[in-house]
Amino acid sequence: MQFRDEIPTPALLLDLDAFESNITAMAAHLRARNKGFRPHGKTHKCPEVARALVRAGAIGICAARLSEAEVFADHGIRGLLVTTAVVGRGKIERAVALAARAPDTMFCVDEEKNVREIDAAAAARAAGEPIRLAVDLYFGRTGVVPGQPALELVRVIESLPHVAFAGLQAYDGEAAHTTPFDARGTRTRTSLARAIETRRLIEQDGIACPMVTGGSTGTYRFDAEIDGITELQPGSFVFMDLDYERIGGPDGPQYHDFKNALTVVTTVVSRPPGFAIVDGGYKAFSTDRPFTPRPVGLEGVTYGWAGDEHGRLGMEHASRDLKVGDRIEFIPPHCDPTVNLYDAIHALRGDRVEAVWPIAARGKSQ
Amino acid sequence: MQFRDEIPTPALLLDLDAFESNITAMAAHLRARNKGFRPHGKTHKCPEVARALVRAGAIGICAARLSEAEVFADHGIRGLLVTTAVVGRGKIERAVALAARAPDTMFCVDEEKNVREIDAAAAARAAGEPIRLAVDLYFGRTGVVPGQPALELVRVIESLPHVAFAGLQAYDGEAAHTTPFDARGTRTRTSLARAIETRRLIEQDGIACPMVTGGSTGTYRFDAEIDGITELQPGSFVFMDLDYERIGGPDGPQYHDFKNALTVVTTVVSRPPGFAIVDGGYKAFSTDRPFTPRPVGLEGVTYGWAGDEHGRLGMEHASRDLKVGDRIEFIPPHCDPTVNLYDAIHALRGDRVEAVWPIAARGKSQ
Repeated sequence: MQFRDEIPTPALLLDLDAFESNITAMAAHLRARNKGFRPHGKTHKCPEVARALVRAGAIGICAARLSEAEVFADHGIRGLLVTTAVVGRGKIERAVALAARAPDTMFCVDEEKNVREIDAAAAARAAGEPIRLAVDLYFGRTGVVPGQPALELVRVIESLPHVAFAGLQAYDGEAAHTTPFDARGTRTRTSLARAIETRRLIEQDGIACPMVTGGSTGTYRFDAEIDGITELQPGSFVFMDLDYERIGGPDGPQYHDFKNALTVVTTVVSRPPGFAIVDGGYKAFSTDRPFTPRPVGLEGVTYGWAGDEHGRLGMEHASRDLKVGDRIEFIPPHCDPTVNLYDAIHALRGDRVEAVWPIAARGKSQ
Repeated sequence: MQFRDEIPTPALLLDLDAFESNITAMAAHLRARNKGFRPHGKTHKCPEVARALVRAGAIGICAARLSEAEVFADHGIRGLLVTTAVVGRGKIERAVALAARAPDTMFCVDEEKNVREIDAAAAARAAGEPIRLAVDLYFGRTGVVPGQPALELVRVIESLPHVAFAGLQAYDGEAAHTTPFDARGTRTRTSLARAIETRRLIEQDGIACPMVTGGSTGTYRFDAEIDGITELQPGSFVFMDLDYERIGGPDGPQYHDFKNALTVVTTVVSRPPGFAIVDGGYKAFSTDRPFTPRPVGLEGVTYGWAGDEHGRLGMEHASRDLKVGDRIEFIPPHCDPTVNLYDAIHALRGDRVEAVWPIAARGKSQ
């Protein structure tokens, strides 16, 4: 039996009560609106988290990359959707192999040449079901332009023997963090309307479009109300972070639909005059946001970056003194890249470590 | 036999010619000035890199943390110096165990209570040499204030039976990136003068001070000229990065004492109108600097962050067109936290992969 205060620092902690509450809330919200729930695995990269989501009713798990999907498949997760195009001969061969052992896996595509390469690779294997392809729509990052260009790509898929059209991906990354709440609603509705219109074009062409997947932790409330969206793929709601907290909700500048379940625990390793230095720096926290980790249970203190392995807390206005050996937890600025720094999640029930979950797909960005 | 263009992306590439040239240059510079060479392992976390440094004459390797040092020790590296205090009972017990199998390991300390805890833990084990402690001096981050406070901590060490005073650590992290070159020289000379003065106090007290260790890739030219500094612990020179390139040299705003040996290779995975999207984002590059990865062999293009897994290249002024499947290498903003994202370094001789080196201490920040 291990306790919270015995875990070597820096380490990733998960409050199981908050985590389970987050999953229950999202699953219930989508179930009540008859939307599928295919949460994104890039947030956690952790098969145990994926299993908890499947137990709560998830129909599958999204993976940002092929190598991430391979890890989930190795751990028995099915209903995988790889949300970025799989490009290049080596990866396409691996994708075909993945589809052979997990036939319901879907792969996003946004370009004719790539579709034809996947078809050719699938043709070269032994007999099997066609590879399921989802057409990724462009809303500012990857994808094919919605409407006619997307329809043309769908027609290419339909014309080929070894691939099958599985549906549309309509993910608007910018929408997820649009502030305030009402502007976020307008943005995601506008994007998803283009996806629905694309679906209509495809169906007018006589092609079935069984799936339209999209949405995020920031936009799920709006997306779940839209007819024609068949499923949502939110990720961060399982953990939450400072970034999502700041996007605003219907009642003000804080977004509190979900609870902060994830912290990084550090130890004070030096206490020079005026400062407490903790053992978490650029290698312990995400650094891609313009704000720093927030201490839990300690007021009047701002975390300042102090290099790869250290953070600096100015003690002048601290609500309590700190000494070497004291442990301080922080809410990370951004959950996904923070989790990607660690090998394991320490799952806590209160102060007891109930489980240590390997982040099996950590670093699997290929 | 694998070639550069066959490595699944994103991946970390090392140009062996540049890497070896960097090591040779630093080792020769220090040898000519009769300074010890104990390069910092936190940059690479890679036993094969450590071995290359030892072959070039390094007397040991620094480790930022105990868990990093344990990995180096597991791989046969000796002469280890753990550059941050080892705090808390569990870690102190591991430090004593590490010293038992690698007795020349040194541990930095900056506080009396911690020193007494290490002494007590060492007393509890079977007979063995005293644990070697280096007193870490404060220049803005961790450490004890130089001068009298440091002397008093040395006296505590000397008064205890199971620990031994090994010397001083005088590392001024701010100095390493001070710009321009002359200001950097002034800053490091001022800091190191305080270390030399502290050594004089200690020796006046009748206590030998066999080591004064410090310095960095940014300050080595100055530090190596200072009498009384016995050894240098630079790290980044093996790889270099955009951050170190910008600190300026004696002949202008670029610092070109060492070559860029490290790149991250990505693939264009989507090509929406006006943009090329590559498969490297927050999980492929360090994000702690206020500038973005720089493409190699591609002009008129600026990398823009596009989330955890993507980067965006505006193509309007690009020196050549890009299509899906093209591979682009980037020099990372900051080498240490970039390396910490990957499991392996692909060591290249020209376009041939000569070796794949596990980054065995990746994530070992504990």
